[in-house]
Amino acid sequence: MALEAEAIRKLLQEVAKGDISIDDACRQLRTPAYEDLGWAKLDTHRQIRRGFPEVVLCSGKSDEQVARIMARLSESQTPAMATRASSSAFEAVSKERPDAIYYEQARIILIGECRECINDKTVLIVSAGTSDMPIAEEAAVTAEIMGNRVDRLFDVGVAGIHRLLGNKDKILSANVLVVVAGMEGALASIVGGLVSKPVIAVPTSIGYGASFGGVAALLGMLNTCSPGVVVVNIDNGFGAGYTASMINRLGE
Amino acid sequence: MALEAEAIRKLLQEVAKGDISIDDACRQLRTPAYEDLGWAKLDTHRQIRRGFPEVVLCSGKSDEQVARIMARLSESQTPAMATRASSSAFEAVSKERPDAIYYEQARIILIGECRECINDKTVLIVSAGTSDMPIAEEAAVTAEIMGNRVDRLFDVGVAGIHRLLGNKDKILSANVLVVVAGMEGALASIVGGLVSKPVIAVPTSIGYGASFGGVAALLGMLNTCSPGVVVVNIDNGFGAGYTASMINRLGE
Amino acid sequence: MALEAEAIRKLLQEVAKGDISIDDACRQLRTPAYEDLGWAKLDTHRQIRRGFPEVVLCSGKSDEQVARIMARLSESQTPAMATRASSSAFEAVSKERPDAIYYEQARIILIGECRECINDKTVLIVSAGTSDMPIAEEAAVTAEIMGNRVDRLFDVGVAGIHRLLGNKDKILSANVLVVVAGMEGALASIVGGLVSKPVIAVPTSIGYGASFGGVAALLGMLNTCSPGVVVVNIDNGFGAGYTASMINRLGE
Amino acid sequence: MALEAEAIRKLLQEVAKGDISIDDACRQLRTPAYEDLGWAKLDTHRQIRRGFPEVVLCSGKSDEQVARIMARLSESQTPAMATRASSSAFEAVSKERPDAIYYEQARIILIGECRECINDKTVLIVSAGTSDMPIAEEAAVTAEIMGNRVDRLFDVGVAGIHRLLGNKDKILSANVLVVVAGMEGALASIVGGLVSKPVIAVPTSIGYGASFGGVAALLGMLNTCSPGVVVVNIDNGFGAGYTASMINRLGE
Amino acid sequence: MALEAEAIRKLLQEVAKGDISIDDACRQLRTPAYEDLGWAKLDTHRQIRRGFPEVVLCSGKSDEQVARIMARLSESQTPAMATRASSSAFEAVSKERPDAIYYEQARIILIGECRECINDKTVLIVSAGTSDMPIAEEAAVTAEIMGNRVDRLFDVGVAGIHRLLGNKDKILSANVLVVVAGMEGALASIVGGLVSKPVIAVPTSIGYGASFGGVAALLGMLNTCSPGVVVVNIDNGFGAGYTASMINRLGE
Amino acid sequence: MALEAEAIRKLLQEVAKGDISIDDACRQLRTPAYEDLGWAKLDTHRQIRRGFPEVVLCSGKSDEQVARIMARLSESQTPAMATRASSSAFEAVSKERPDAIYYEQARIILIGECRECINDKTVLIVSAGTSDMPIAEEAAVTAEIMGNRVDRLFDVGVAGIHRLLGNKDKILSANVLVVVAGMEGALASIVGGLVSKPVIAVPTSIGYGASFGGVAALLGMLNTCSPGVVVVNIDNGFGAGYTASMINRLGE
Amino acid sequence: MALEAEAIRKLLQEVAKGDISIDDACRQLRTPAYEDLGWAKLDTHRQIRRGFPEVVLCSGKSDEQVARIMARLSESQTPAMATRASSSAFEAVSKERPDAIYYEQARIILIGECRECINDKTVLIVSAGTSDMPIAEEAAVTAEIMGNRVDRLFDVGVAGIHRLLGNKDKILSANVLVVVAGMEGALASIVGGLVSKPVIAVPTSIGYGASFGGVAALLGMLNTCSPGVVVVNIDNGFGAGYTASMINRLGE
Amino acid sequence: MALEAEAIRKLLQEVAKGDISIDDACRQLRTPAYEDLGWAKLDTHRQIRRGFPEVVLCSGKSDEQVARIMARLSESQTPAMATRASSSAFEAVSKERPDAIYYEQARIILIGECRECINDKTVLIVSAGTSDMPIAEEAAVTAEIMGNRVDRLFDVGVAGIHRLLGNKDKILSANVLVVVAGMEGALASIVGGLVSKPVIAVPTSIGYGASFGGVAALLGMLNTCSPGVVVVNIDNGFGAGYTASMINRLGE
Repeated sequence: MALEAEAIRKLLQEVAKGDISIDDACRQLRTPAYEDLGWAKLDTHRQIRRGFPEVVLCSGKSDEQVARIMARLSESQTPAMATRASSSAFEAVSKERPDAIYYEQARIILIGECRECINDKTVLIVSAGTSDMPIAEEAAVTAEIMGNRVDRLFDVGVAGIHRLLGNKDKILSANVLVVVAGMEGALASIVGGLVSKPVIAVPTSIGYGASFGGVAALLGMLNTCSPGVVVVNIDNGFGAGYTASMINRLGE
Repeated sequence: MALEAEAIRKLLQEVAKGDISIDDACRQLRTPAYEDLGWAKLDTHRQIRRGFPEVVLCSGKSDEQVARIMARLSESQTPAMATRASSSAFEAVSKERPDAIYYEQARIILIGECRECINDKTVLIVSAGTSDMPIAEEAAVTAEIMGNRVDRLFDVGVAGIHRLLGNKDKILSANVLVVVAGMEGALASIVGGLVSKPVIAVPTSIGYGASFGGVAALLGMLNTCSPGVVVVNIDNGFGAGYTASMINRLGE
Repeated sequence: MALEAEAIRKLLQEVAKGDISIDDACRQLRTPAYEDLGWAKLDTHRQIRRGFPEVVLCSGKSDEQVARIMARLSESQTPAMATRASSSAFEAVSKERPDAIYYEQARIILIGECRECINDKTVLIVSAGTSDMPIAEEAAVTAEIMGNRVDRLFDVGVAGIHRLLGNKDKILSANVLVVVAGMEGALASIVGGLVSKPVIAVPTSIGYGASFGGVAALLGMLNTCSPGVVVVNIDNGFGAGYTASMINRLGE
Repeated sequence: MALEAEAIRKLLQEVAKGDISIDDACRQLRTPAYEDLGWAKLDTHRQIRRGFPEVVLCSGKSDEQVARIMARLSESQTPAMATRASSSAFEAVSKERPDAIYYEQARIILIGECRECINDKTVLIVSAGTSDMPIAEEAAVTAEIMGNRVDRLFDVGVAGIHRLLGNKDKILSANVLVVVAGMEGALASIVGGLVSKPVIAVPTSIGYGASFGGVAALLGMLNTCSPGVVVVNIDNGFGAGYTASMINRLGE
Repeated sequence: MALEAEAIRKLLQEVAKGDISIDDACRQLRTPAYEDLGWAKLDTHRQIRRGFPEVVLCSGKSDEQVARIMARLSESQTPAMATRASSSAFEAVSKERPDAIYYEQARIILIGECRECINDKTVLIVSAGTSDMPIAEEAAVTAEIMGNRVDRLFDVGVAGIHRLLGNKDKILSANVLVVVAGMEGALASIVGGLVSKPVIAVPTSIGYGASFGGVAALLGMLNTCSPGVVVVNIDNGFGAGYTASMINRLGE
Repeated sequence: MALEAEAIRKLLQEVAKGDISIDDACRQLRTPAYEDLGWAKLDTHRQIRRGFPEVVLCSGKSDEQVARIMARLSESQTPAMATRASSSAFEAVSKERPDAIYYEQARIILIGECRECINDKTVLIVSAGTSDMPIAEEAAVTAEIMGNRVDRLFDVGVAGIHRLLGNKDKILSANVLVVVAGMEGALASIVGGLVSKPVIAVPTSIGYGASFGGVAALLGMLNTCSPGVVVVNIDNGFGAGYTASMINRLGE
Repeated sequence: MALEAEAIRKLLQEVAKGDISIDDACRQLRTPAYEDLGWAKLDTHRQIRRGFPEVVLCSGKSDEQVARIMARLSESQTPAMATRASSSAFEAVSKERPDAIYYEQARIILIGECRECINDKTVLIVSAGTSDMPIAEEAAVTAEIMGNRVDRLFDVGVAGIHRLLGNKDKILSANVLVVVAGMEGALASIVGGLVSKPVIAVPTSIGYGASFGGVAALLGMLNTCSPGVVVVNIDNGFGAGYTASMINRLGE
Repeated sequence: MALEAEAIRKLLQEVAKGDISIDDACRQLRTPAYEDLGWAKLDTHRQIRRGFPEVVLCSGKSDEQVARIMARLSESQTPAMATRASSSAFEAVSKERPDAIYYEQARIILIGECRECINDKTVLIVSAGTSDMPIAEEAAVTAEIMGNRVDRLFDVGVAGIHRLLGNKDKILSANVLVVVAGMEGALASIVGGLVSKPVIAVPTSIGYGASFGGVAALLGMLNTCSPGVVVVNIDNGFGAGYTASMINRLGE
């Protein structure tokens, strides 16, 4: 936007000098900052505005739609990234872009290189159980692609809290923490109570009975007694990794 | 019930001997084992059947109703106990029974003496925060009246988990544990993960926002990843203390 | 933990004597009490801490993961037990450990022998309908493996309450009771009202319409008018059997 | 409506004979069967259509509105009845109609006489606890006013099921049963399983914690395993008494 | 139960006369009134107690279990009836009992004859849409098997209310009405407002979006402004037909 | 209905003149304004009463039922339209009516021609994401068939609000707007805040985690801070297009 | 916005001519179109953008805040209107603006005159019961202030549907309809099925038991089987009246 | 914790040298890092562990309890801060500590000075409406006390989005943003889509009808389509300000 303000100023200077006609300036001031495929409008300004290009959510899109959008996006910006990608979606993308990479457990497709790390601060991904791994990996890979050092501490749920307490060094040396847990989600409060850094909690839909698809963990995390814990949607590893990166790269 | 079977046998013997007429025996076989006040039916067999007399829940009853029921109950059985009692209900009871005692924080009225402790095993009441104290006290006083050694460990919520871990001796020496917590209710899972004894979890309505009057804590406790944790209704300190006593006095 | 305290004391004595260097002692004081597979951390101290080894929940794990974890766990501790196990998971385990046993209806895999019963007190599993049997069996087999005499009383739902009342002997002679019921879950309150022993209620997801996957039964059991009834998560037969065993073996 | 069909036929005969003009007939065919107060439209045909006059629900109406509606209704039909009436509403009605009667516990106002009983079949009102009495009385008084013999069996909740089973004669001799219960609402299923007559279940908002204002009892009753049990809204004693009367007077 | 009371009296007379020993009488007084298959307890007294034999709910039972239970039940009582039966369950039953009949749309299996109608009063089944037909048929067939004249009025939803009002004769001549509707369930209130007979409302899971599997219709029916409407569980056509039969045959 | 009133008047005139017998007039006054297929009642007066013929909802109907109803409806009225139609339903319809058209993305079948547009005012369909397209198309095609100029503005979700603001001309020139969005549904409030025309919001079930099948979007839209926004059921594109047409053709 | 586009064009022409400096033009292009009170930002462009000035929602504001905002708003635009206003808020406003008017039942404050009606089309407000009147009046007064002829049809709930059908003339002659109903909210579907004009449904929080503060009516209205019915938030009479006005004045 | 590791090492060195006895060392290793008031355990290590002292939540505590805890806390650490403080709680605190300060709108009590700002990066608090101000102030004051430059942008809800867009400079120059909104909570998504910095969303309980005490806003924020938005509990301004401070002071 700072860019936009600058652009407007330059445009007006050109108008003042007569270098550009009023009609042209009008048109330009209204040019939408996106590419229109008719059925989709690619947000090509996302990189400028938010510091990272638009990321494609594959859910609810056909493999062909994913392939076409990824191909177009990767032309104008890189890295191009897609989440919740099935292996068949990856195959469709690969046909058009053989250099695409698939992170199977994280269900992420990548075209292009990961961003470079700008500092040596780490994002630590902590998970409660083995079943939470796909979501934990989604968070970890997202943060890696966005240019962060990522550390993992998996399967340290509170039923055996010494597994967590035995890894205090990892926990205390992290700059931002993402805690991924299903069932009662208590891990977020415990970790939050140990550190002086922000904790992003990701409730997962792992659990049975009255876990209600992750609602129990979500409510537990929202009601944490440890200030400094913030929450994203159920199973939203991507959102957690994205925000963790934003925070970790502050001052960039 | 074993008693009942015996009683039936004796009755039949009397019928066989002609000591009792068939009509009388019929009537007796149908005699209900309760006292009928018309608007209330006191379960006078509760003591025999369940090992402890009927306990009066004051909610939804007028002070006069409480006083009348307590007076009648305490005639035939002791101790007589009432929960969720307001101070005005206690005053009404006191007029009829000046020897009644009021546990203010626990909101419990007692007529008669606490049961004797039959062993030196302890019930430990653990609570997460200062605001959970009324429910924690309800559980503690209930277990004391029912004849148990009770220990208290209050304000050891997981935001500062060292307060809990610093009291491992208390925790490890208990025979049964009651864990009282609101907000995310994570304390129950942590405690459950540390001990080899049964843990009864009591969610409280303490919390704000999306705690929904204790639902967040309730769901957290039901979804615990620590087996050995069982749950009672929100704010039901009485039920937790009652069951803890049942367990603690097994083998009695 | 008592063990841990002892261990710390011994270590300090060795430090004092110079038998162990400070660096070594530091390291040892931090050694985590679990086996780290990278993607999983086996809680190898669970047996010491809680009296029974870690139990594997198969849901959300691949058959291979189950097989690997079971193989590792059974090396260091026994019995090794897995719940919610599909028949294909059992096949995977069998390849590595041909001595593994599969309880089909309870969906439990066992490597090793059931614990020995330390007393002749029984855990009674009561169920309301034929459809509740898998959960009831999960509770029963869990308690058997953990070393308890288990009795079963199935299909005694309240629509024909004489089926229940006709089995009072079984009910009154139990030391701990587990009541498994779906639909309105009323059976737990009825049983709870008859006995002087703790009742663990398991709501099941059996029912249709407004049973909401077991929520109706869960709420019914939480709101029981019979004190002495405690509740576990919907369909959590394992948790009920586990706690029943804990209670039944108190004094062990 | 049978009446209406007849009326239409008569009107057409008069039109055919020329006794009534077409315009007049048109108007009459459209005359609404209610009295219009502007802000309220009294359903003066209710008696003809449904067998009992419109009943006034006081909730959300001012005392003056109640008084005015009751005065108007009682002119054209009797008995006139109002539910959920506060004592101040009764005072307002009394000023206009000193012959009005107030059933305090049931919160019902009556102008006129109860209907005559047409047979000696009884409606039995069963309630679980003392706190359910206001709703149970609302059902009972409604059925009495509508012309039924009513019997009451109060405070027979399932925590002491012998209180219920000890009154089988009352239960088995009823023609229709209304079961009023809060908490887990199990009483409806138990009673339903004992009788061959229809049972109308009324969940009450009595309970605490996760009873959610009567939702637990409502769900329990809807999910009953005893066919022959039907349900009305939470605390809707009036609706239960009304339907019980409809059923009890069938064949009238 | 009246029967039971009589039986007890006779037994006591025999004991008095010495015709039966005390031990035998004890045993007999405890004989459970059901057949025990081990995994199922058939309620063989259901007919005596409730006026109709136990009905088998096929959901959650294997085809073999259904076939075995139906075979056993039909030996001692008739008609034998099963609900929610798949066609494969019917095939399994047919093998053992080739005379079994399958009502495909209603998903009901019948062995034996429908009860005889004892009077000429009709149960009217009203449904809102074509998609509600399976549930409406379940109600209709249930009432027919239980010995009632049944009339059907289908597809008269409130979007075109003249379809309903055009059938007033059918509606006004019914003795009991069952109204089956999904979506907003308004049909029950409309029908309830027209008649002086009891209306049993069945919410169905038909609808989309925020119908939440029938919850919208259920709430609508519970909150009806027409007294005389009572409700059963979502999609519970069987329960509605059963209760309608109970009511229609009162005085039997 | 105005038509009906007229019809009644004419009939009465004929009765007065003796041109028609009273019995015949009675019968005619009761003739239902629908075609009765037994299992379905086609609302053949819908066109007269509501300005557009009855539309068939295919959900819950067999392909054969859809084909039969469409064939019958299209005889007496046109266009005949069916929603939520699968391709197999379309094939069944095509066999009977080869002129039928299938809008694949919108899942709509049409027999006959779209209504003519009576004015040049446009209905604008705005959608948030690519995955919302099927619902957006259902709304668009419905409005087109009912005789409206329809404009589309797709994939303008609020994550890149310039895509929306860059299309203000389209937005400001619409006469009625339909906004289709899942996830948080914020688009409806934004659009509503920009225009002086009515906005119909359609929440979709697109989203994951705590979107609860569209509930998050539904609640967001109901709680809009922009007056002038009204809401239809989740995924109800048809209802939105239908109402948009009603509004757009007012004054017709 | 059309205005805004024009304004931008003019500004650019002035820049081209040198009549305005680039810095000034920059500033002007950024001038926010609202008045900033610091703690509140009055949307002074609302009239231009949306055709009616910003309306003040009093809930959550102090009487003084309401008075200050109303005074400021009424300086620059008229009419100034506030909803959910208590009588004390009105007193505070009156002190500053003695010409303010209070619609007590509708809880609306007005400064200035109602808009003029531009046509003779009517908005009809239909309500189900006497208790729904405050919300119905909020809708009616809102539409009147915004310049519409408003007609009222109150207390025509579906328990006595002839009250509604007896007023077909009113219903059929309306251009837009607002239907206000609590309890099951069925009235909206019935009215929707009768007319060819748009119906805006307003669920109210009137009802008891399982109406859940209006949720039952809300769900009923969202799930209507009558297309052409759209819904606003519970008790949102203002939003309904506002949208009804927007629709009624289309073509203005 | 890094501190703790160091402390342990030093202690062991003293043990090795014999400077401290084994018993003493044991005791010290177990000394809990909190002050025990019996009914409360003050987490006196919170400052060391988390970078800011324990903050007192006044809800559910008596004024006296608040005063006593604040007095004790402020002795050992500063600043001492309490949230959700009523004015009477402040009076109680003032008696003991006349230097205490009360932020009335934010309901915060402070003893001691705000932390010093370590950099010139700003936390921006954005709020949607005037009624959200108390929560917005709670967030703002918390961040100020914890040592941050705080900027405020209030009353910029999406109904008039130009108020927001007209303040892009403020928005784009913030380092961390807190967005406070009730109703549909759309503001968080809009702001999130504009910036490259983390956004902490706070749903408020402001709204009516189906806002369900803030649930609508909460769900909207969790389901945001703008990555980089994280959420705290309803009305939890404190938690948002706390986390914003943690993030803003990273690198400290």
